[in-house]
Amino acid sequence: MKINVLTLFPEMFTAVTGSILGRACEKGIITFNFINIRDFSNDKHKKVDDYPFGGGPGMVMMADPIFGALNSIDARGKKILYMSPRGNILDQTKIQQLAEEEELTILCGHYEGVDQRVLDHFDMEEVSIGDYILTGGELPAMVLIDTVARLIPGVLAGEDSATEESIYSGLLEYPQYTKPRSYEGMDVPEILVGGNHKLIYLWKFEQSLRLTRELRPDLFEDFVKNSKKLTKDEHKVLEKVLK
Amino acid sequence: MKINVLTLFPEMFTAVTGSILGRACEKGIITFNFINIRDFSNDKHKKVDDYPFGGGPGMVMMADPIFGALNSIDARGKKILYMSPRGNILDQTKIQQLAEEEELTILCGHYEGVDQRVLDHFDMEEVSIGDYILTGGELPAMVLIDTVARLIPGVLAGEDSATEESIYSGLLEYPQYTKPRSYEGMDVPEILVGGNHKLIYLWKFEQSLRLTRELRPDLFEDFVKNSKKLTKDEHKVLEKVLK
Repeated sequence: MKINVLTLFPEMFTAVTGSILGRACEKGIITFNFINIRDFSNDKHKKVDDYPFGGGPGMVMMADPIFGALNSIDARGKKILYMSPRGNILDQTKIQQLAEEEELTILCGHYEGVDQRVLDHFDMEEVSIGDYILTGGELPAMVLIDTVARLIPGVLAGEDSATEESIYSGLLEYPQYTKPRSYEGMDVPEILVGGNHKLIYLWKFEQSLRLTRELRPDLFEDFVKNSKKLTKDEHKVLEKVLK
Repeated sequence: MKINVLTLFPEMFTAVTGSILGRACEKGIITFNFINIRDFSNDKHKKVDDYPFGGGPGMVMMADPIFGALNSIDARGKKILYMSPRGNILDQTKIQQLAEEEELTILCGHYEGVDQRVLDHFDMEEVSIGDYILTGGELPAMVLIDTVARLIPGVLAGEDSATEESIYSGLLEYPQYTKPRSYEGMDVPEILVGGNHKLIYLWKFEQSLRLTRELRPDLFEDFVKNSKKLTKDEHKVLEKVLK
């Protein structure tokens, strides 16, 4: 996958190009192209923002430098995402769709946003990572890149841990334990060290159900509605939890 | 505010300690303390993770190094957040609460999560940034830090742009325009350059209403329910939009 990122702060992205995605870059699975919007300012002071028409606080990113940056990669007609609190909120369904694209272009705004004419002309899709306000679009872009990249085959290490996980199944994840079996007087639940795989599986399932019901009743309700595909044993556990 | 971050990848955080928050650090408004969990491994290979009890994919972060890291800052009894898809989803209400704390401690997990005994013993609060899976807790921690930090007085530049913004008012933001007035054949809406502040205000309000109704009917419904505080003029605009 080729990922173009338009930003005023390309240096921030070492947080994703290092560590896990660094390996994917070395293997050529992901190619990044960071474009500094400021390089396309036609202003002698390399200005990229100005006061909003009609007043209001803050500064708005000007159309011209962004047009220049996008034209430099022939972006018109391509899939372009603009990170914005106005967009649809990211979820795994959207992320899976994006993971199938060959090329993604992401615009990171700053200040009070970007001139609307940029969004209109390039027919951008606005994407939000949640109902909260950030100082810029860079962190949201990194979140999007991380969630999408880990679904691309070969990006995660051999363990293939992208499959069996919370959210995918619609339930929150059960508690996890690792060595030592006893630590500071706290023991791992007996059943997990007993070796009975069926009992372990049903225990994990029950824990996930209980946690989801307690912490995310919305997800629990959806799960119960779609519970027809459960095995007989799973159904018994669900009924026990519903009591 | 003092922010302690426990992570296996402290170098990722230059994305937030640079640029905007960098100034807040220099002014002493925010102090960061990054703690590398690996430094507290008692294993001769500095191991920090192991296989989960009961099987399953991936690796779980061991209790011992995290206990060591947390004890090094006397964290027990303090407000400790664990970034996790199991947590309550971050919103502006939660962010405003967190912005009033004097000290925050954030644990970033990796792999398949951390040993549950860590979460229990330190009575951590799990926080999620959204219903999607990331490779680790570092990006979510940075999102949390950015959203919280920008509410602390003195962090944002003089313009005080943390007040009049989308989400705060419960509506999405109206389109923004800046110079030039005409660009590539696209003009700024006449009303914004007309100088009538009342008309401009009501135009912005109408745009916000229309965008919110189209893109986020959930927010629009909440807004209409709480619309009693509107002025007479605002009410007229709302009625026009509802037609």
